[in-house]
Amino acid sequence: MSAQSAPPATSALLTDLYQLTMITAYQALGLERPAVFEYFVRELPAQRGFLVAAGLEQALDYLETLRFDPGELDWLATTGLYTRVALDRLASLRFTGDVDAMPEGTVHFANEPVLRVVAPLPEAQFVESRLINLLHYQGLVASKAARCRLAAGTARLADFGFRRAHGAEAGLLASRACYLAGFDFTATVDAGRRFGIPVTGTMAHSFVQAHGDEVSAFRDFARVHPRGVTLLIDTYDTIRAAHAVVGLVREGVPVRAVRIDSGDLGGYAVEVRGILDTGGCSDVRIVASGNLDEFAIERLRSAGAPIDSYGVGTRLDVSADAPYLECVYKLQEYDGEPRRKRSTGKATWPGRKQVYRELDADGRIARDAIGLVDERLPGRPLLEPVMRDGRRLARPPLDQIRQHAGRELASLPGPCRRIVDPVPIVPTISPALVALAAAVDRSFP
Amino acid sequence: MSAQSAPPATSALLTDLYQLTMITAYQALGLERPAVFEYFVRELPAQRGFLVAAGLEQALDYLETLRFDPGELDWLATTGLYTRVALDRLASLRFTGDVDAMPEGTVHFANEPVLRVVAPLPEAQFVESRLINLLHYQGLVASKAARCRLAAGTARLADFGFRRAHGAEAGLLASRACYLAGFDFTATVDAGRRFGIPVTGTMAHSFVQAHGDEVSAFRDFARVHPRGVTLLIDTYDTIRAAHAVVGLVREGVPVRAVRIDSGDLGGYAVEVRGILDTGGCSDVRIVASGNLDEFAIERLRSAGAPIDSYGVGTRLDVSADAPYLECVYKLQEYDGEPRRKRSTGKATWPGRKQVYRELDADGRIARDAIGLVDERLPGRPLLEPVMRDGRRLARPPLDQIRQHAGRELASLPGPCRRIVDPVPIVPTISPALVALAAAVDRSFP
Repeated sequence: MSAQSAPPATSALLTDLYQLTMITAYQALGLERPAVFEYFVRELPAQRGFLVAAGLEQALDYLETLRFDPGELDWLATTGLYTRVALDRLASLRFTGDVDAMPEGTVHFANEPVLRVVAPLPEAQFVESRLINLLHYQGLVASKAARCRLAAGTARLADFGFRRAHGAEAGLLASRACYLAGFDFTATVDAGRRFGIPVTGTMAHSFVQAHGDEVSAFRDFARVHPRGVTLLIDTYDTIRAAHAVVGLVREGVPVRAVRIDSGDLGGYAVEVRGILDTGGCSDVRIVASGNLDEFAIERLRSAGAPIDSYGVGTRLDVSADAPYLECVYKLQEYDGEPRRKRSTGKATWPGRKQVYRELDADGRIARDAIGLVDERLPGRPLLEPVMRDGRRLARPPLDQIRQHAGRELASLPGPCRRIVDPVPIVPTISPALVALAAAVDRSFP
Repeated sequence: MSAQSAPPATSALLTDLYQLTMITAYQALGLERPAVFEYFVRELPAQRGFLVAAGLEQALDYLETLRFDPGELDWLATTGLYTRVALDRLASLRFTGDVDAMPEGTVHFANEPVLRVVAPLPEAQFVESRLINLLHYQGLVASKAARCRLAAGTARLADFGFRRAHGAEAGLLASRACYLAGFDFTATVDAGRRFGIPVTGTMAHSFVQAHGDEVSAFRDFARVHPRGVTLLIDTYDTIRAAHAVVGLVREGVPVRAVRIDSGDLGGYAVEVRGILDTGGCSDVRIVASGNLDEFAIERLRSAGAPIDSYGVGTRLDVSADAPYLECVYKLQEYDGEPRRKRSTGKATWPGRKQVYRELDADGRIARDAIGLVDERLPGRPLLEPVMRDGRRLARPPLDQIRQHAGRELASLPGPCRRIVDPVPIVPTISPALVALAAAVDRSFP
């Protein structure tokens, strides 16, 4: 049991037990005809006017590389839950299906399929748990990060959230989701290496505290990092430290920016900006951090706080005001027959679906309609082929995804963009889809 | 950039950039004397009467195995941020310090140090980000899981939350934290393998939907799993399905339990229990799931709902009502001198501290006091040595930790245990610690 802290390598066992219980049954029963599952979000959290699709890259990686290794099968054998025949079938499990999906960075709304899987039932079923796990978290964070982007205007944004993200994978994937949605930097070093995201970092209070006094700490830090430093000025007295920074700049210390991490960030920013400008340090920028989210950023910006960059951490990486989405991955068709679930409050639309989006003359979203794939509704279809026969069709670079997300955010109507009390678009349901649902209900009375 | 979805192997780059920027400065400046950092939670979320320490096992694994591998150092070199000398120093970085901590499963309150690190400043500083990342998340989930345990009485509890946990590491560590806090099962297969937690699982709606009708689905499932099944009965009509289950049991189908996943769980449980009992199926148990948390469990239980087991998912794994803790890891002493931060609203108590707990005659917690390690206050000291010179002292088995947690929960006074509006214990601060803080303020004016 050593190295339990090591984040797991991708494992086929990253799933719920019932997936194994079901697919061994499907295989034993010969229920292996093509099934259609769709991933969608039932409803948006209260303070979300839109969502941003993210995580497809990792989801396709998962599907492409899915397999049980011998150690995993040996362990499953020890549980006594599965026959030798069933385990042999698991040994040869691969994902051989087709996937259509919205490109990462696409904005979407309630009930819109974001990803569709068509594959033999055991394969399509088995991948549910990890697919949701990957698509949900990045979508959750990208959606919140996009709101920070809208709130911040042209100010720069950095993800500072690793320490309180829920584990290592969350911290890394949060950085990716934030960057994709328009952030400029991450503080998480490994996200820089893995995803090519620009990294940023300054100093902590402990650096100041480890010194006998603040000014010595600042001077020492700049001596070791002579190409320019960001100094944290709120350890003892923010205003006094701002005056000290002016003195240091006059000495020739290469101060690029100061960071304020506590107290009334807007009030301090105004005072510190005044001290710096009066002291001839107009090119020293101000970074704000500490309990920030899109609501705080909007308040600071609308109050005119002279803040050049925001470091956004915990509340972003855990999506604190809405820490999960009501997302699901549901069977919509089996062996050519549409299916639907009618559980109280959780009914679904049957069949293979597409989302058709119409823009207005200004390029803003005018209408989204959910229809069947073989309908020809007006507007652009949002789901595109991304995998065929278990092979991915493309791997767009992260910067290209980020540009797409930027265009998508620009297409949002005002009510969706609003930070407080946004109003999402409610997609219309095509008459053909309504009729199909009624027909399915008649055949499964 | 392949396999980006693979949860990362433990990497020294799982950190914030400023840790690297600071430790290269510390090393260059010769600031390598012993530093004391403590991890604690500033304040409890509104609906928490206590917290449960968890994650120490993974934290110690991290400290024991910390090192930069050549690929990481090569990548750091490409950033141009660090000198060759600095990179060479990083190559030899190891954690050689001492750690004292509350055993996992210990209940704790605001401002109480949960873990203390004493190590040369660069080492003690560098480990901050990942240490918090590991201790925070498991503590967060264990605290919520313990409340579920208190709410559920003797009913069985299973963690169903993997799919909406924030990434793979979160899903796995949530299972561990839940089990530690008193859960009985997890649905997450890989958590079963990694931590030895009993796994459980039933069927999804898609299994029912893939069949032409519900009864065929139930019969088929039991045929493949003849040792007994749990049947999901809410896909179309819960009451109709309950009657069908009675018929199946009479046929000899080995039904162990039925699961209800939607609608009015308490109301359905009463009706279904009645149908089962009337039909001679008193030994078929009822499992409830769907949007559960400790609040819902308490409501169901106090309404007398005949539910034998609860599957708790999303709201637990993301700690939905309190998705993060105000936890920090702060420098308290450097080179023998106590330090403190005085930032607005974020001041800390200086020095090496201990928590002393006194129990009343019934074995309930009467008082917690935070004092200095070399004080002799009444009560049992909660922090114990767990690592010396970078080597862990013990690795208690998970079941032993779980037993400890059970005893800890039993020691909670009534107001802390309450599910709604609990009242946490507020630790007292020893006079010696108050005096030390005042002295530190005088020396860093």
